[in-house]
Amino acid sequence: MQRSSSAPLRRGRARSAVATLADLGEMRLIERLGSLLPREPGWVVAGRGEDDTAVLEGPGRHLTLLTCDVQEEGRHFERSWIDPRTLGRRAAAVNLSDIAAMGGEPRVALASLMLPADLELRWFDGILRGLGEGLAAYGAALVGGNLSQTAQRLAIDITLLGRVTRRRLTRRRGARPGDRILVTGWPGESAAGLALLQARAPRGKLQRRHLEPEPRVRAGQALAAGGVTAMIDISDGIATDLSHLCDASGVDAEVDLSDVPVSGVMRRAATRLGAEAHAWILNGGEAYELLCTAPPRRVARLRRALGDLPLTDIGVVLPARSGRWLLHDADRHPLRTGGYEHFAR
Amino acid sequence: MQRSSSAPLRRGRARSAVATLADLGEMRLIERLGSLLPREPGWVVAGRGEDDTAVLEGPGRHLTLLTCDVQEEGRHFERSWIDPRTLGRRAAAVNLSDIAAMGGEPRVALASLMLPADLELRWFDGILRGLGEGLAAYGAALVGGNLSQTAQRLAIDITLLGRVTRRRLTRRRGARPGDRILVTGWPGESAAGLALLQARAPRGKLQRRHLEPEPRVRAGQALAAGGVTAMIDISDGIATDLSHLCDASGVDAEVDLSDVPVSGVMRRAATRLGAEAHAWILNGGEAYELLCTAPPRRVARLRRALGDLPLTDIGVVLPARSGRWLLHDADRHPLRTGGYEHFAR
Repeated sequence: MQRSSSAPLRRGRARSAVATLADLGEMRLIERLGSLLPREPGWVVAGRGEDDTAVLEGPGRHLTLLTCDVQEEGRHFERSWIDPRTLGRRAAAVNLSDIAAMGGEPRVALASLMLPADLELRWFDGILRGLGEGLAAYGAALVGGNLSQTAQRLAIDITLLGRVTRRRLTRRRGARPGDRILVTGWPGESAAGLALLQARAPRGKLQRRHLEPEPRVRAGQALAAGGVTAMIDISDGIATDLSHLCDASGVDAEVDLSDVPVSGVMRRAATRLGAEAHAWILNGGEAYELLCTAPPRRVARLRRALGDLPLTDIGVVLPARSGRWLLHDADRHPLRTGGYEHFAR
Repeated sequence: MQRSSSAPLRRGRARSAVATLADLGEMRLIERLGSLLPREPGWVVAGRGEDDTAVLEGPGRHLTLLTCDVQEEGRHFERSWIDPRTLGRRAAAVNLSDIAAMGGEPRVALASLMLPADLELRWFDGILRGLGEGLAAYGAALVGGNLSQTAQRLAIDITLLGRVTRRRLTRRRGARPGDRILVTGWPGESAAGLALLQARAPRGKLQRRHLEPEPRVRAGQALAAGGVTAMIDISDGIATDLSHLCDASGVDAEVDLSDVPVSGVMRRAATRLGAEAHAWILNGGEAYELLCTAPPRRVARLRRALGDLPLTDIGVVLPARSGRWLLHDADRHPLRTGGYEHFAR
């Protein structure tokens, strides 16, 4: 079951006598599933709860990967921000990113489109073209789905199937004390782009990072082949997603952002908006970069395997019960998760 | 790509200069997919366009079946009509019905839940329980999915994977002139139940038929094993779904409802509401019965295979270009499709 947000526990008293989803937050909703659903069959390698992607035995010596993610108007995008083709590619990318985080190979997708009747045909055409292109760029094909008319706003729910060999499968669990914590690409730039979109700033590279995330499918395969010990894609920010990885691995961690380069364009955006570039890096959601852990001796080889894509060292895995820390200006602060919170008040 | 409605062509002139989905209707939207999307890979046996369920090669000597269908509040249900557990079972059933129509065996499901933050926790719990029960009753398991908060109304999008052997795979194509047209169970009763729900009539068996459709999974497998030539599940009414089957098979058909028993409870509902029971049977959507075709010599054996579930003969397949007809009171009328029309004005 996908954890598309941080959703930390928010206990406190409910405002009314009737419990609603906002009283729990997403993580506790996912924890409830065990008591609500029958036990999973034996051929489910990873099901509800830990990873964003379910893992099933077969076919043959492969494992099957299954994930789904929705893009909903007003929540994940605004039609005034994005053109239809880019929206289609984005809906593909957020799902491809989940398969990438397992070291997998995407194969086939279904699209469930909830479409307002007054949607312009060019939006329908553009979304489908973008979906098809976005999937085909990584060897996957859209093979079916469902069109339904909605009385609400546009929503694009994609289910993606992939596969991976047992040896290559990489999960959130597996990080070991002493492993380095590594992140691909340009974390923070998507969050900066979102802030610029919300401020209606002139379009540039950062907004493109937000609207057109590049799923790290080939990087994920290379990292899995190169022996990373755990991996997750950054949908809710480094702090939150690193916490998920630590929870699954039973470890703690220390993050040091002093080596993370902040590009000139991001520094200028932060100045313009009165924002903090490091907050975007640490807590910015929807980056769709990969966060992974690996023993120090493997880091140089992993970097070579990624070629031009940066792989930045942002910290170290600590033994359980060491706490989770952020080094900042020579001080050690508790690492706070501040990503997007589904349901929590 | 699922055709969850009849949506006949509605050409005419668009009301404004900008084309919208309402100008085309669902069938023509599905027809556009070929020009919008890359060609499907060779291992796609049935993809976008013909059946509701995509069919892929493997694993091994099996074929993989993939389908998805959404239940959206205000469109497919009202919270005042249905309890959460029944809603969960219904969301499972409409997908199980698609696998049933291929003669397949359901295996695993993903649930993408779009949840309002103020949804009561008992709704979340009930929906999940119902989904789990509804799937488990047919040997399938919910293995993952996505929870997202929606600013809109509740929606439950389910993706279901199944499998079938190559010999058992049954599609919409395959009906041959002279084949009998057969329907399982109690078509029309779900439509009668919907009409009673809308009229806020006291609850009874017919409303349960609408709210708690029983997917014909075992019947679908028995019909496929017994040699039906084509099959479809009735989501949009017999007239519309028979038209889809005829289109796919390249044949025409004649329907005769005089042998279809109308139960006393349905006759009373028709009287109460001033409605026509045969219209419910012919055009009532969301029945989730199976409509199939078979050579006359096989009908008795198929009936025996279904045990207590009725299999009613409602007509005969005609050669192409014979037209599509409804026999009624000794007259022959053109068979009109009048099911639910997505998008069409």
